[in-house]
Amino acid sequence: MAFFKNNFWGEKNAGFDVLYHNMKHGQLATKELAEFVRERAAIEETYSKSMSKLAKMASNGSSLGTFAPMWDVFRVSSDKLALCHLELMRKMNSLINDINKYTDEQVKIHRKTKEEVVGTLEAVQTLQVQSGQLQKSRENYHSKCVEADRLRREGAPQKELEKAELKSKKAAESFSSCVEKYNRVGGDFEQKMSESAQKFQELEEAHLRQMKQLIKAYSHSIEDTHVQVGQVHEEFKQNVENIGIENLIKKFAEQKSTGTDRPAPVGFEEYSSSQVPEGKKSRSKAFRIPGLGKRDKEPDSTDTAVTEAPNSPQVDDEGFVIRNDANQNDILPCDGFCS
Amino acid sequence: MAFFKNNFWGEKNAGFDVLYHNMKHGQLATKELAEFVRERAAIEETYSKSMSKLAKMASNGSSLGTFAPMWDVFRVSSDKLALCHLELMRKMNSLINDINKYTDEQVKIHRKTKEEVVGTLEAVQTLQVQSGQLQKSRENYHSKCVEADRLRREGAPQKELEKAELKSKKAAESFSSCVEKYNRVGGDFEQKMSESAQKFQELEEAHLRQMKQLIKAYSHSIEDTHVQVGQVHEEFKQNVENIGIENLIKKFAEQKSTGTDRPAPVGFEEYSSSQVPEGKKSRSKAFRIPGLGKRDKEPDSTDTAVTEAPNSPQVDDEGFVIRNDANQNDILPCDGFCS
Repeated sequence: MAFFKNNFWGEKNAGFDVLYHNMKHGQLATKELAEFVRERAAIEETYSKSMSKLAKMASNGSSLGTFAPMWDVFRVSSDKLALCHLELMRKMNSLINDINKYTDEQVKIHRKTKEEVVGTLEAVQTLQVQSGQLQKSRENYHSKCVEADRLRREGAPQKELEKAELKSKKAAESFSSCVEKYNRVGGDFEQKMSESAQKFQELEEAHLRQMKQLIKAYSHSIEDTHVQVGQVHEEFKQNVENIGIENLIKKFAEQKSTGTDRPAPVGFEEYSSSQVPEGKKSRSKAFRIPGLGKRDKEPDSTDTAVTEAPNSPQVDDEGFVIRNDANQNDILPCDGFCS
Repeated sequence: MAFFKNNFWGEKNAGFDVLYHNMKHGQLATKELAEFVRERAAIEETYSKSMSKLAKMASNGSSLGTFAPMWDVFRVSSDKLALCHLELMRKMNSLINDINKYTDEQVKIHRKTKEEVVGTLEAVQTLQVQSGQLQKSRENYHSKCVEADRLRREGAPQKELEKAELKSKKAAESFSSCVEKYNRVGGDFEQKMSESAQKFQELEEAHLRQMKQLIKAYSHSIEDTHVQVGQVHEEFKQNVENIGIENLIKKFAEQKSTGTDRPAPVGFEEYSSSQVPEGKKSRSKAFRIPGLGKRDKEPDSTDTAVTEAPNSPQVDDEGFVIRNDANQNDILPCDGFCS
């Protein structure tokens, strides 16, 4: 629809000015859009940095206690969120480049358009000048007619009357010529204004198409990030779900285990000089392996104790079994929540 | 599974210490979770404030030009995003209250548990003391036997030998009694340690259940916000879609219209003293309505001009129609993107 061609007429011929300035405001809109996107990019960057800080906080979470492995889930999730928002910041920055490219293009288009519509501006000015002249000429004609009329009514001398009538006739001719010129100039203005208004509207349509395309890119980037963030949340939820309570208890028990063998009852160990060389004697002791229920109270049951422990483990000075699995559980396989 | 009951034995009897401290680390975990959530709340608050600032920026977007109505879409969307993240901050703060409540409860539970397991700690200490005594008594028995052996080999006087054998017999009795006591103390320790280990595991399971519940609340809040943010984005996209380019052009044309009437050709207006009183004459002019193609160049065509304009609108000094619709389009109905 020819909205511009139909709506920018009116008594002051101000339509051209309005449409020309509207075109120039397009540059302001582009500049403001770039500023808006730049601000959004800055917001996303700050958020991303904060999330990295949060991830750092999670990675500093205590490694003691059964809860410790959960911190890794928080750390991974926060780190990924930081990445999502950093990515959005990058996309926003790339969009700003696109906006800036369009800004340059827009300036060129406006420069070219200004040249194309300069004739219309001149027609507006000519019309305004002509309008003034028309007014003056009309007033002159009327005052001459009034003068001749007055002389006629007062019965002035014929010569004087003829002179006045001649003047009024000349004023009528001048007025008529002004009317003709005014109408010609008006016609020219209308023709040019119609064309310019159409040009301005087409320009504006192209501008808005471009702006909407830039907004679409903005919207898509935000949408992509939103989907990614959703995936990170889903992953977080799943990871929390996956780390069962029994799992945490088991992991802790394996990592921090102090040994699985209960305190073994000590047996009385009878001295025998023939068994071992003196001096080493006190270091080699025999022990029975539990059951607790059959604790031996007789000091001379050494032999039984030895035979009862065919796989007797290595024991220390206090008769407790030395753990040989002390380190074997230090590093555990990942259960799906390590990264 | 009895992970704690099976894994915290070993030669040093350090299992009790490990499990007791693990319980205490639960308080650290709760404290750290609260700190983590507090940091997240702060991040969301900052993001929310930034979004409000962005909304302000959008509301300051130029009201000039065809693009102007788009800023309202940006403003509304940013304002809503600000609200979403503010809501998340509030939920995080409420979660911190829940965590703090649990912290208080946890302190009470730990205090009670400490009282319940103090017997086990004493059993550990008794076992350690008894272990030392067992060692001393064993060494004494052996050295007495060695002495008697030596006297026997060297053919020492019978009296001296009997004295030494009596000493070794007494040492054997003392050693035997120590073994018995050690085993009794060891049995007591094993019994108490089993119970305490089970208690610690149950406590830990309850703690982890509570922590996971708190994490679930954290996760739900984030998820809710994520859904809301998605709706805001969807709305933004829809609003951008809804504001068609023609719509923007039309709106601008209506709001900034300078008038719909093209410059009307002026007709020559003949002076007639009888028609109107003098002085008002020059203000009442007759005009023809266009067509431009039939522009009249004769100065005496006034009557035709008047008859050709039966509904001739009010006109000004320059012969242009005075707009009477100047303000009627200033306020437009909302097209779904106002809020």
